[in-house]
Amino acid sequence: MNIKRPLILISNDDGYHAKGINQLIDMLRDLADIVVCAPESARSGFATAFSATLPLRLKLRRKEGDGYEMWSCNGTPVDCVKLALHELLANRMPDLIVGGINHGDNASVNVHYSGTMGVTLEGCMKYIPSIGFSLCDFADDANFEPLRPYVRHIVQKVLAEGLPKGVCLNVNFPKLDTFNGVRVCRMAFGTWYNECVKMRHPHGYDYFWMTGSYRNDEPDATDTDNWALTHGYVAITPTRIDVTDYDTLKNWKL
Amino acid sequence: MNIKRPLILISNDDGYHAKGINQLIDMLRDLADIVVCAPESARSGFATAFSATLPLRLKLRRKEGDGYEMWSCNGTPVDCVKLALHELLANRMPDLIVGGINHGDNASVNVHYSGTMGVTLEGCMKYIPSIGFSLCDFADDANFEPLRPYVRHIVQKVLAEGLPKGVCLNVNFPKLDTFNGVRVCRMAFGTWYNECVKMRHPHGYDYFWMTGSYRNDEPDATDTDNWALTHGYVAITPTRIDVTDYDTLKNWKL
Repeated sequence: MNIKRPLILISNDDGYHAKGINQLIDMLRDLADIVVCAPESARSGFATAFSATLPLRLKLRRKEGDGYEMWSCNGTPVDCVKLALHELLANRMPDLIVGGINHGDNASVNVHYSGTMGVTLEGCMKYIPSIGFSLCDFADDANFEPLRPYVRHIVQKVLAEGLPKGVCLNVNFPKLDTFNGVRVCRMAFGTWYNECVKMRHPHGYDYFWMTGSYRNDEPDATDTDNWALTHGYVAITPTRIDVTDYDTLKNWKL
Repeated sequence: MNIKRPLILISNDDGYHAKGINQLIDMLRDLADIVVCAPESARSGFATAFSATLPLRLKLRRKEGDGYEMWSCNGTPVDCVKLALHELLANRMPDLIVGGINHGDNASVNVHYSGTMGVTLEGCMKYIPSIGFSLCDFADDANFEPLRPYVRHIVQKVLAEGLPKGVCLNVNFPKLDTFNGVRVCRMAFGTWYNECVKMRHPHGYDYFWMTGSYRNDEPDATDTDNWALTHGYVAITPTRIDVTDYDTLKNWKL
């Protein structure tokens, strides 16, 4: 690798083969050396989970001499980051960690379930500038091309300036060919409901699939990620590791 | 069930058979009707993960006529809460959701990996007052008895007063027979390192176990959960769902 170039570690939760991560690599390939360590298959909904009891394996999927290699791992998105930092990049910490581009939005409370944001939060917990990118389109063949100039701009800015300690970026794009602009915004409060569907197994027992519908609980608030996305804006939510609620801390006594 | 009594939903990440959850049930049994829905085996490190692709099953493990039933589920801690709310408690929302008592601490950044706090955060996302209890002792036969008056006091207070919207409690106990008191505190910044151990499989390939050592990155700060725990105090950290970093939101522009 050319050590004068920055190094970006990329992972995701849709798996190393997904269109989103491969489009992301293509968007950033000329800006930096790139190491990818991503799940070997889809890990949606894995949040910041890590594998306490699963023996983990790494498999080299691609290696190009000019600073690009791709690994897969049988663990969670967070496992991928931990393994990459410990095993693949032990001698050269990345300048940036990027999760995505996720097929599907990670706005509002989805930040708590998202494996893409798991990658991003894990990077942030290791004090490395980190960004998660997500597109509001679950389709396998989603069109990521409109995101390209924004992804490159945000990545270049964070490479140049860094981010405050304990803060990463959660970037969500609406499913559009062109955007109305960018909003730096807060996460909306929202609720998933009808989350379980009961089915009958052929052998005669009940089982359940996790699914659900989402409701924005603050539809009139114009400063949220949900508002930005439904009004055609790219939503950038600065996201913190410190989840202490300082107001309650001041007032709550046992 | 006697509908004049409050109803508490209990889950954990160590599994329905663990000593910690059974001690918790014993501590709260006279205060409320209790429904338990907990993983059928250990799910440490599962964070707020849910099962997007796993068919889920519920199994009734115990039912007593006077308001106590225990179910197990093959999913994550968050799956347990979602399934319990949707399927077991569809006609009677719980007044409180409690995670734990966890075998092992969930202070500092561990809040992001903890399945016990996954239970708690999921309850909070459903706008139900929620508390996670953890003891800094991983032993299967850890002594939970010193926690009893504190657990009961905190639960009774939250049942009576509720908690602010979007805020839950992360309560950690040091491994002691008596405590110096209670500190309402912030989470410390800390770092896990040496997280991966490489091993050689008998068949000749490398694999990795996730493990690690923890370092408090703010050892001199006296207002953190890590400080409280190492100085003999019960650490209560008010914990928020909204992870927006408002300082960065005001200042960051693309």
